Amino acid sequence: MKLWVSPRAPSPRRVLMFIAEKGIGDVELASVEIGRGEHRSAAYLARSPLGKVPVLELPDGRALGETRAICSYLEGRHPEPNLMGIGFEEHAFIEAADRRVEFYLLGTIANWIRHGHPGLAPLEQPQFPDFSAAQGRKLREVAGWLDGELQRQDWVAGKRFTIADITAFCALEFARGLMKFRPADEGFEALQAWRDRIAARPSAKAGA
Amino acid sequence: MKLWVSPRAPSPRRVLMFIAEKGIGDVELASVEIGRGEHRSAAYLARSPLGKVPVLELPDGRALGETRAICSYLEGRHPEPNLMGIGFEEHAFIEAADRRVEFYLLGTIANWIRHGHPGLAPLEQPQFPDFSAAQGRKLREVAGWLDGELQRQDWVAGKRFTIADITAFCALEFARGLMKFRPADEGFEALQAWRDRIAARPSAKAGA
Repeated sequence: MKLWVSPRAPSPRRVLMFIAEKGIGDVELASVEIGRGEHRSAAYLARSPLGKVPVLELPDGRALGETRAICSYLEGRHPEPNLMGIGFEEHAFIEAADRRVEFYLLGTIANWIRHGHPGLAPLEQPQFPDFSAAQGRKLREVAGWLDGELQRQDWVAGKRFTIADITAFCALEFARGLMKFRPADEGFEALQAWRDRIAARPSAKAGA
Repeated sequence: MKLWVSPRAPSPRRVLMFIAEKGIGDVELASVEIGRGEHRSAAYLARSPLGKVPVLELPDGRALGETRAICSYLEGRHPEPNLMGIGFEEHAFIEAADRRVEFYLLGTIANWIRHGHPGLAPLEQPQFPDFSAAQGRKLREVAGWLDGELQRQDWVAGKRFTIADITAFCALEFARGLMKFRPADEGFEALQAWRDRIAARPSAKAGA
């Protein structure tokens, strides 16, 4: 299998951290330089029609896109350790937790950065700085909600480490790297403590 | 089970159409009036901490949020007809197709409407009309991509009707209702023909 990734981008990092947690060894990496527009080349669009990164080339030549769908495929191929749920009921609750942090944490952070950071102007034309600022405010509300969750439970989805922890961690790392966002600076101590625990896992270095 | 829905909103409609396709009979409906702010009441926030609609109350009293996670739960409980994939490989490819239309079609349409339509001003404060206009232009790009897909294949995920068709249909219906968006008016004939085929299914009336 070959996984196309971009350096320092949060979505490829989610898949790389997922692979590291599972100890999957047969994934070859290939790089797409978004800053140089390589994701819009004809060769890349043939495997990812909307120019999105990451994309996974399967052994039979088919290309599978979309971060979470790639993780679903890898979980099916390498079931252990389980990161997405055992049985349909746990699967659904972990999917709900993962979607919450993906949409409301990562999605809000991505809007904040893509419309506000000069380094991401090549990706978002035009940028809307006022929209970015409003998303930055919304991020604090979402971080406050997640901080409350992590005061009551050890992990984002509840009782054990799952894909939802990977998604939330990569979201916060994106905000830390480009916006210097640090939960403890805003009073979110439980979120900071959880983040620091995840950062100590060997998988946290993947894609960093 | 009790499903909390809001009239005419695209996410509850996705779940209602999914239920109708499966012929599930034991889901009681309860209504949340977003326009009156009922999604921010303490009673509602107790079951949906971020005030999102829909949410499903399970027989054991737990509340499960997030549209696609609710569908995953219902698919596990009522496997036939299968709408999300049989085996991990098909499941992953359908998830990828569903995410593409959810993020790039529904997400773009939602931004276009929420930041541009006066009727949705209570939901999005502040609205950013310029951002809305840019998203309206992006919608045409995404619709063009999907039109190309549907020139080559009968259904959004490929060979059969799946959850991805439900997501894409509800997205287009949201744009049709509030923005009078009609694919054929923009030259997207394959997308219009597919939309009209889906609209003829009995499930298309659910949540309309």
